[in-house]
Amino acid sequence: MKRVNIGLLGLGNIGSGTYKVLELNRKHIETASGLDLRIKRILEIDTERDRGFTVAPGVFTQDAETIFGDPEIDIVIELLGGIEPATSFMVGALKAGKSVVTANKAAIAENYELLTETAAKSGAQIRFEASVGGGIPLIGAITEYLCANEFTELLGILNGTTNYILTKMDEDGRAYDDVLKEAQALGFAEADPTADVEGHDVANKLSILMSLVFDKRVRPNDIPTQGISEITKEDMAEAASQDCVIKLLASAFRTEDGVECNVQPTWLNKEHPLADVKNEFNALFIKGNAVDDLMFYGKGAGPFPTASAVLGDVIAIAKGL
Amino acid sequence: MKRVNIGLLGLGNIGSGTYKVLELNRKHIETASGLDLRIKRILEIDTERDRGFTVAPGVFTQDAETIFGDPEIDIVIELLGGIEPATSFMVGALKAGKSVVTANKAAIAENYELLTETAAKSGAQIRFEASVGGGIPLIGAITEYLCANEFTELLGILNGTTNYILTKMDEDGRAYDDVLKEAQALGFAEADPTADVEGHDVANKLSILMSLVFDKRVRPNDIPTQGISEITKEDMAEAASQDCVIKLLASAFRTEDGVECNVQPTWLNKEHPLADVKNEFNALFIKGNAVDDLMFYGKGAGPFPTASAVLGDVIAIAKGL
Repeated sequence: MKRVNIGLLGLGNIGSGTYKVLELNRKHIETASGLDLRIKRILEIDTERDRGFTVAPGVFTQDAETIFGDPEIDIVIELLGGIEPATSFMVGALKAGKSVVTANKAAIAENYELLTETAAKSGAQIRFEASVGGGIPLIGAITEYLCANEFTELLGILNGTTNYILTKMDEDGRAYDDVLKEAQALGFAEADPTADVEGHDVANKLSILMSLVFDKRVRPNDIPTQGISEITKEDMAEAASQDCVIKLLASAFRTEDGVECNVQPTWLNKEHPLADVKNEFNALFIKGNAVDDLMFYGKGAGPFPTASAVLGDVIAIAKGL
Repeated sequence: MKRVNIGLLGLGNIGSGTYKVLELNRKHIETASGLDLRIKRILEIDTERDRGFTVAPGVFTQDAETIFGDPEIDIVIELLGGIEPATSFMVGALKAGKSVVTANKAAIAENYELLTETAAKSGAQIRFEASVGGGIPLIGAITEYLCANEFTELLGILNGTTNYILTKMDEDGRAYDDVLKEAQALGFAEADPTADVEGHDVANKLSILMSLVFDKRVRPNDIPTQGISEITKEDMAEAASQDCVIKLLASAFRTEDGVECNVQPTWLNKEHPLADVKNEFNALFIKGNAVDDLMFYGKGAGPFPTASAVLGDVIAIAKGL
């Protein structure tokens, strides 16, 4: 059994989910991978909150340098969210030779070159499967198993909040504001839903996919982006009358001049595989010149699905140590 | 650029597709992976057939030992199909220290222990992504990126011929025999369709998934298997009247006593994500205790999709050489 020590940055919802899944499936992970994964230190200010599990004394720290300077720690998991201080912490970890796993789409989308180049220089890895599509293992599949394909097209439903709202508007004929309030009450939408409903969250994810799928760097702010807040129940009814549904799509197509991409509400024929992706589910539809049409479907958010992707990345790195 | 030499066993439809995709995407593969993949020798009796490309003189051989004994060859791709001589050739390659990539579901399902144990002893790898779900990268995803999950359930549409027949019966209200004849004329069904329509092909694939997903070895002949040849258009209409479709499903569930599995035509509610998997498409629906519901969808057969999976395996092995 190979012991691998982890430093965890952030013990909020996603951090706690990752901690819990690691404990829940510890025996299975040991058997399947031969790895004894240990969370040795946790960077977190709130040490008192009841998370449903107990953290051993001495594990919490308020100083990231105690993690980066610990020679026993091999991998740093960054689950703070937001661009800073997360980016600086990831750079610090990579420069200290620790490989980094993150779910942070905003930081990866904004600082893609900095983070990947710092990793390349240090010889450590940075992996971010959870940053796009949550638990769906699409980044690994695209960059490794589908690597013999040139991709020509991608279409993604990459935000659960907006897909939930559009699904309820379509199925129940309700108005946007009405469904948004319900989604907020159920915890499917934030109190300030701007990043979701105006498409910025999806633009971050599409920016990451553009680098991986088309080897083209496009900053999130340079992606033409339109959200769903102007969609009316009349729009939904009109689409339905023509056998279509409206979905918030991240789209990218290879053209003669390069690759074009955007985020916008889009009419989809009900026969399209993405048309049946409902409620909080996410999916990526992608076309390769060998594999043809592929779709990956699953939960794009939530502590446990995100933990699945984070730990998958940790295991992939740990196997190679 | 790392040069990796390949020995290819079989230049039929799938072998030719693999050869073509490698040439078509050579530049892309070199850029994405840093690998210069070369097919150095091809075991094939039919050296004269017009395949749309020219094989250089001296590449064809009729003696597998010239491949296994060639110290420059690192990887053997087995695309002969059938249990023998494919199994013996794979064992021969592994014992010679060559890693093996295969699309051969019958040989893997029948001789799983022999092949994986021979690989483990030799230190070489055996990979078989293309054996289940064709181009869909599901084996890699399950065994690597989803490795932090315990799986509780899987449901698969894993045979394109039967899914095509059932789709046409459902959508057009036609009889089984009528659609089968059309499928044969279109090349979607074999002249002798027994292995497909009686579920034996799916049982091979489910046997492989049982080992990978549930770590439980079940031989194909020990999986309760029922095909679609008894399904009538009246059965389809009755299912449709209750908002269901009939699909040939590979199913496995974790129970208190272990894991149960079978292959049989199954009523699926039209709301289920698998209900919209139509025509020759395949899909695997799987539930993990962290990631929750996931579905992978794509082309389960055909020279180019199969080549995508075969070359993905080759690249994964070659990167580690």
